Amino acid sequence: MELQRLVETAKPRTRLRLDFSYDGADFQGWAKQPGLRTVQGELEKALATVLQRYGTPPTLTVAGRTDAGVHALGQVAHLDLTDEQLVGLDDSHRGKGKHKPDVSLEARAARLARRLNGIAGLSSDLYVKSATIAPPGFDARFSATWRRYEYRISDREAERNPLLRHQTLWYPKSLDLDAMNAAAATLTGLHDFAAYCRPREGATTIRTLEDFSWTVDASGVKVARVKADAFCHSMVRALVGASVAVGEGNLPVGRAAEILDGGRRTNEFKVMPAKGLTLIEVGYPDDAGLAERAELTRQRRGLTPRQDAD
Amino acid sequence: MELQRLVETAKPRTRLRLDFSYDGADFQGWAKQPGLRTVQGELEKALATVLQRYGTPPTLTVAGRTDAGVHALGQVAHLDLTDEQLVGLDDSHRGKGKHKPDVSLEARAARLARRLNGIAGLSSDLYVKSATIAPPGFDARFSATWRRYEYRISDREAERNPLLRHQTLWYPKSLDLDAMNAAAATLTGLHDFAAYCRPREGATTIRTLEDFSWTVDASGVKVARVKADAFCHSMVRALVGASVAVGEGNLPVGRAAEILDGGRRTNEFKVMPAKGLTLIEVGYPDDAGLAERAELTRQRRGLTPRQDAD
Repeated sequence: MELQRLVETAKPRTRLRLDFSYDGADFQGWAKQPGLRTVQGELEKALATVLQRYGTPPTLTVAGRTDAGVHALGQVAHLDLTDEQLVGLDDSHRGKGKHKPDVSLEARAARLARRLNGIAGLSSDLYVKSATIAPPGFDARFSATWRRYEYRISDREAERNPLLRHQTLWYPKSLDLDAMNAAAATLTGLHDFAAYCRPREGATTIRTLEDFSWTVDASGVKVARVKADAFCHSMVRALVGASVAVGEGNLPVGRAAEILDGGRRTNEFKVMPAKGLTLIEVGYPDDAGLAERAELTRQRRGLTPRQDAD
Repeated sequence: MELQRLVETAKPRTRLRLDFSYDGADFQGWAKQPGLRTVQGELEKALATVLQRYGTPPTLTVAGRTDAGVHALGQVAHLDLTDEQLVGLDDSHRGKGKHKPDVSLEARAARLARRLNGIAGLSSDLYVKSATIAPPGFDARFSATWRRYEYRISDREAERNPLLRHQTLWYPKSLDLDAMNAAAATLTGLHDFAAYCRPREGATTIRTLEDFSWTVDASGVKVARVKADAFCHSMVRALVGASVAVGEGNLPVGRAAEILDGGRRTNEFKVMPAKGLTLIEVGYPDDAGLAERAELTRQRRGLTPRQDAD
């Protein structure tokens, strides 16, 4: 077995990029856990089914490891396939009798998306938008230069929409948008966000918050746009919690930055529920900068991959 | 008992207008049915709870009697309250000790909305947007001059959004928008829509289809806008079904109008599933025209209310 594993590991592989979206309500977050339905668990199970005749199934590395209940419209992951697995994606190998040996790599990758969606079913809460051959140096997690989330709150003034209730927090009080924006603006920039993170041993909490602002949509829903190079654990929901405390008048506008500077978690605001939170988009540099960015990220964080949140 | 009923019936009443929205997925349609969860059933049960100490609970008359699984963002109904019930809506009568006899009628109506939502709960699939005192002559059903629906289809080209999957049909083939619009345009105007209706005994099928057009939203979802003075049973879903048959090339563009002219239901297209359909808005004339419109509608249809669909 050990020898077989080594042989498997040594095989040349082609990296694929998966773009996908999910409704987080019925997932226990991204990371696979025994006995629980998670996004990684479902996707890797589907991959194992699609590639069952072609060696050890691949695992996924994701850009944003979302918590239980958090949604994603622009999630990104990568996986590495052996040549055998790539060829195995060709439908014609599944007994249809039409052998097409010249199918391009890109066409094979696209088939992976279709076959994963075929397993997930047409009405799924998980949808693979595309599977493509990744450019050289691409790492879904470490090449990423930014992540952007949205948090939706329907406060007392907003019109509640039952069709959007799974991705919108219904808040029973009125929230002052101007105060929320004033407080949010004091948190942007390069800071140690320890006061707004659930601690993880050995993980850095220094982040650049590139955008944190609130707008109101046509139906009165308040939407936070939150963008950073990366996020530590539960950071967006803590930032939103401070905004809500300011918006309902329970926290002075200036206090949000004081808490940041204090560097310690506080009970002056609540970490908001997962249901209002959606990962919207992950940004990557041009192809030429991918490998460099990945190396830089690894060095700056000075961490093994599993210790740090995204 | 009979005497009591007559006394109840003779009491002067004030008409209220309810504006509300719902996710149709977990409702067996609008109309109350024993043992089934329906929108009317849930709302009337909530009304009976709110008004339990104040005589016979009111019943609802709705603008658009939606089928099982159909959603609504702009549904309208009316109900009639006795003075006793109106006063009963005043919170101060419920033991808080602050008697406020001068509360306006409008304020009492607004309380009804809050109290109904309190019963439905903050994360409900049914939300009362407002309760207001109806203008004289208002009838939610017979005063309405038009109803507007939308039908959402994510075809093979569209990006599927798991967060909107409950209100969007995922269709596995490609649909030709131009062909769909060409066919739809031939159906607008005043016609007998018998070929596009599920028959109901004694109900007219003559309708004015004021708008039937398809657009594509930013994510590629094809959205039908369907507006008419009123709709007969399953009419929108039949119209959409003909569009889809045209869009995928199974029905010639000109055939949609030929079927209309034939006046008989056909198996050349399918009535589409309920999940993609949402009642968006109901239109009413200015206050001055309300009673006149209601009388006109009743005369034109020449029917008892229960025999006709909306």
